[in-house]
Parts: sequence; structure tokens; C-alpha cells
Amino acid sequence: MAQIYDKVALIGLGLIASSMCHAMRRAGLAGEIRGYARSQETRDIAREIALCDVVYDSAAEAVQDADLVVLCVPVGAMEAVAREIGPYLKLGATVSDVGSVKRTVVDAVSPHLPDGVHFIPAHPLAGTEHSGPRSGFAELFDNRYTIIVPVEGSDAAAQARLTELWQAMGALTEVMDPEHHDRVLAVTSHTPHLIAYTMVGVADDLRRVTDSEVIKYSAAGFRDFTRIAASDPTMWRDVFLNNKEATLEILGRFTEELFALQRAIRQGDGDHLHDYFTRTRAIRRGIIEAGQDTDAPDFGRAKVRKT
Amino acid sequence: MAQIYDKVALIGLGLIASSMCHAMRRAGLAGEIRGYARSQETRDIAREIALCDVVYDSAAEAVQDADLVVLCVPVGAMEAVAREIGPYLKLGATVSDVGSVKRTVVDAVSPHLPDGVHFIPAHPLAGTEHSGPRSGFAELFDNRYTIIVPVEGSDAAAQARLTELWQAMGALTEVMDPEHHDRVLAVTSHTPHLIAYTMVGVADDLRRVTDSEVIKYSAAGFRDFTRIAASDPTMWRDVFLNNKEATLEILGRFTEELFALQRAIRQGDGDHLHDYFTRTRAIRRGIIEAGQDTDAPDFGRAKVRKT
Repeated sequence: MAQIYDKVALIGLGLIASSMCHAMRRAGLAGEIRGYARSQETRDIAREIALCDVVYDSAAEAVQDADLVVLCVPVGAMEAVAREIGPYLKLGATVSDVGSVKRTVVDAVSPHLPDGVHFIPAHPLAGTEHSGPRSGFAELFDNRYTIIVPVEGSDAAAQARLTELWQAMGALTEVMDPEHHDRVLAVTSHTPHLIAYTMVGVADDLRRVTDSEVIKYSAAGFRDFTRIAASDPTMWRDVFLNNKEATLEILGRFTEELFALQRAIRQGDGDHLHDYFTRTRAIRRGIIEAGQDTDAPDFGRAKVRKT
Repeated sequence: MAQIYDKVALIGLGLIASSMCHAMRRAGLAGEIRGYARSQETRDIAREIALCDVVYDSAAEAVQDADLVVLCVPVGAMEAVAREIGPYLKLGATVSDVGSVKRTVVDAVSPHLPDGVHFIPAHPLAGTEHSGPRSGFAELFDNRYTIIVPVEGSDAAAQARLTELWQAMGALTEVMDPEHHDRVLAVTSHTPHLIAYTMVGVADDLRRVTDSEVIKYSAAGFRDFTRIAASDPTMWRDVFLNNKEATLEILGRFTEELFALQRAIRQGDGDHLHDYFTRTRAIRRGIIEAGQDTDAPDFGRAKVRKT
């Protein structure tokens, strides 16, 4: 595939940025990949594994002359980074981000970007429970959606080029406005994560069912919650603080439904439970047909023998 | 491996029973495997795929002369089956079950078993989202726990023999009393299932975020809930109706914690969120170290291209 950008600067070198490095290299999409991370340790690891072509010790240096700058830091750190790099951006450059919340990121970043720089926010809906510069892999975005979230006045050519990059990294793309993005993600990602964190926290709290029992017998269902509850705490703190309204609204709906099911259990209303549990099967089928999960039993998990 | 029982009768031919067939055959553990299922369709499929050595049209016929009878029906159907087979059981036979709740099953089944028949309840903590006679596979129990739940007066030799069978089918075994079993399972399985069903139901309800969006963007977290929310509705209805108290208690704890996190979001208390999300990471590590899940990113899911 042909090169899409000459110089690409990634600010923040976690799971998404490191996967972007691998995905861009796989298809030869960037002339030079530059990286910057706030922590010295992350920069050292990135250099050691030759993650980027160059790792800089400041964001300002990393973005100079860059044609594309992608902010890959937690949502709560976006504003500070934008303020820092603003004065060093090249005229005509595109700035994007990979934040899981869009409205607050747009509001935080836009004021710091000079005229003549194109801001095209984006959000790849892909991830694993691992984080850091070693966690990335080229296939992370394959067949997963990346949402492009143009803002008022986003340049059409710049948007088309960024879209081309994501597609060339393997992603399917869609366009949304920031508000709609934040509502959709509250349902498909933010609320499920909060619920998983809560369930794991409850299990962790219970003293009479010991930790060891919770762990030994986790394959009966609980285990599926622990993967997403092992995601990066800083990233998720920022998500909830920045998509407050939509998350609280979905949580309200969730609590309402949970209370109705709880009442059905208490009253022994088997029909209500059976109807509810039948309805939820169909949505699983839809996900598998859309190629967004595997139909292999138990997610196709390989059995792991304790050594 | 040596044969452990001569004639084994499986009542109910769903995921667990069909996996038991394959696991017993893999290691040559039974002289003859007999099956019975209430529905004609299930019996026809079982015959077509030669799941058992013989499929009978009544439970009473299936259990005659059997050395081991395993009730593999939903918890709510246990009593009726026990009543039906009671008079036909061989003196000295062992009766077991695979129900996900133990106290109510013990109370429902025991009165119908004649003297001289050994009742040793059990519960394999293994499953997938699939059901029916075609869904079984020999490896389902490998390295997963099966809980043996002896009742008052359970015969030690009969218990040892059943334990040997489960271990020979690949399982690790533990012994618990019915009450403790039901409390542990309320945490590790029943409450997580109810929560997953609820979250999937909420997503299904939302009209403004269309079904198609919920499905397309499910890889961002929601997807992990849909597998367990695709489990068999009848089985799960019966679980909640029969483990009411323990489930309602854990649900109460869950709601309490969820409200605390909800409040932290509303008040912008980032420290509370960050602390909570950090704590839940450790438990995931424990599960992986115990060999109860894979450390492969994203459960090691193979990427599925839509065709």
C-alpha cells in the first residue's frame, strides 16, 4: 500500500499508539513514525523495542514538521498536551486523537490549535486488557470500527486522508458527531465497563467467599467480567469523568431493569425471567453475524493447564 | 483409563450431558451410555449423531439396571424426573445431578430415591453459550472444577467412585456443602449472569441507539456480556428461582457498590474511581495464574471477517 503521510507523530505510547506503529509499518503507510511519552520508562522501552523510528523527549520536538499528529493519551490529559504542542504544529498539519470520549476532547483541544491546522478527532473501537508500549500488535484494528468525528469546519480533504489511513490500518470507518458518539459509547462500552468493575469489586470485597474461591470457580461466568475490569485505571477514570451525563443516564436505565428482574426473582415470576432471557439471545446472534465476535464455544479460549 | 461404571444413564441431553458422553468415551469410562430426553426432537438428534449407545423413549427405561444415573435437566425439572425414575432404580445405584443450585435440588430429589440408592449431587463449573445435544465436546471439563456436594448419609465409596469419574473426564474436584456451594455460585456465576442479561436487555431496549449500532460497535466492551447472556433461558430462570436468597443478597451488595461509583462519577471524584479500578486488576491476574483463563489479548479471539 502507498504511503499516506510523510511524518506521523504519536503522543502517548500505550496500547493504541503502539498498535498504530505496527499497523502503519505492516502496510508502509508512514514515511517516519515519531513518538513521545510523558514517562521516561515508557520512552526507554519504546527505544529498546524500536517501536518508532525516533522517540523524542518532548512532545514539542516530536510534532515539529509532522504531517499527522495523533494524541494517544488519556482523555483527561488531552488539553495539556494540546496546549503544549499548539505553537509547534506545522501549517497544514492534521491533528487527531484516539480518545474514548469526544465532546469534551473536542472542547479541550480545539482552542489550542492554530489556524491552518486541521483537527479531525477519531476513536478506534478496539482494545485489549493490556496496556503500555509492549502491548500493541498490527492486527488490533482489523475489521473493527474506527469512528471519525469531524468538528465544525473540519477540512474534507484532511478528513478523507485520515479515513484512508485508518482503513489502511485494517479498520472499518464510520462518521458521527461528538454527541452521538458519546451516547453510543455509553451503551456499548462505558456502562459495561463500569458494571464489570463493580462486579469484580464486589467479589473482591466478600470475605466469607474467599478470594481463592472466587478465582478457582471463575469459569462459571465471573471470569468474563474480569477481562474488561483489568483495563487501564487512568484511562477509565477519565472516560467516566468526561462522559458523565450519557453514562449516568444509561446507568439509570440499567438499575431500573435490574430492579425489575430482582423483583421477579423475589416474587418467583419465572415467566418474566424466561421472556427477558430469551430476548437477549438474539442480540448475540447479531454480533456474530456482523463479524464482531467468534461463535466458537467459550470465545474459543484455549484450555490452559496450570504448570 | 479403566472403566468406572458399567451402565451410565443420562437424563436430559443438553450441553453437559452430551459433553459427558464425549468425555466418558474419550477415556473409556463407561461400559454403556444410555440417554433420555423429554423432547422427541432431542432424542432424534441424539440418535442421528449416535451420541449415546442407546436412547430410550422414557426415563424409567433408561435408568433400569444403570449403575450411575445423572440428572442433566434444568433445576426446576429435577423433582419430576426423580419422582418418575425412583421406582425403577437399581439397588446400589448412584444417582447424581449437574444442577447449578444445590440446596433446592437436594430437597427436591432426595425424598423420591429409595433406600439403598446413593445420592451424590455434583456441579461441573463449565459451560458455553451453546445448548442441546450437538453442543457437547470432550474437553469441556478439562481443568475446570466439578463440585461434589455430598448429603447427609452419602456413601463414602459411592462418592469416591463418582469423584474418580469426574477426574477421569478431566475435571478438578472439590467438596462443598449445599449452602456454601450456593453462596459461592451466587458470586461467581448467578449474579454475573443476571447483570449480563440486564445490560444486554438495556441495550436492546434503546431505540435511539439502534440495534445495528449496538451490534456494530460491540467490540468496545458490550460484546463480552453477550456471550453469557446467550445462555439457555430455562436453565437460568430455574437457577434464579432456586437460589433466590444468595443471589438477592449479592445483588444488594452489587447495587450498593454501583451507587457509590455512580455518585463518584456525578461528583467528579476521580480518586475514588481510580482506586477502585486499580484494585480490580489484581483479581484478573489471579485467575490467569490459576489457569482459569487465558492471558492472550482479547481472550485470544480469532479475528472474524464478515463474508
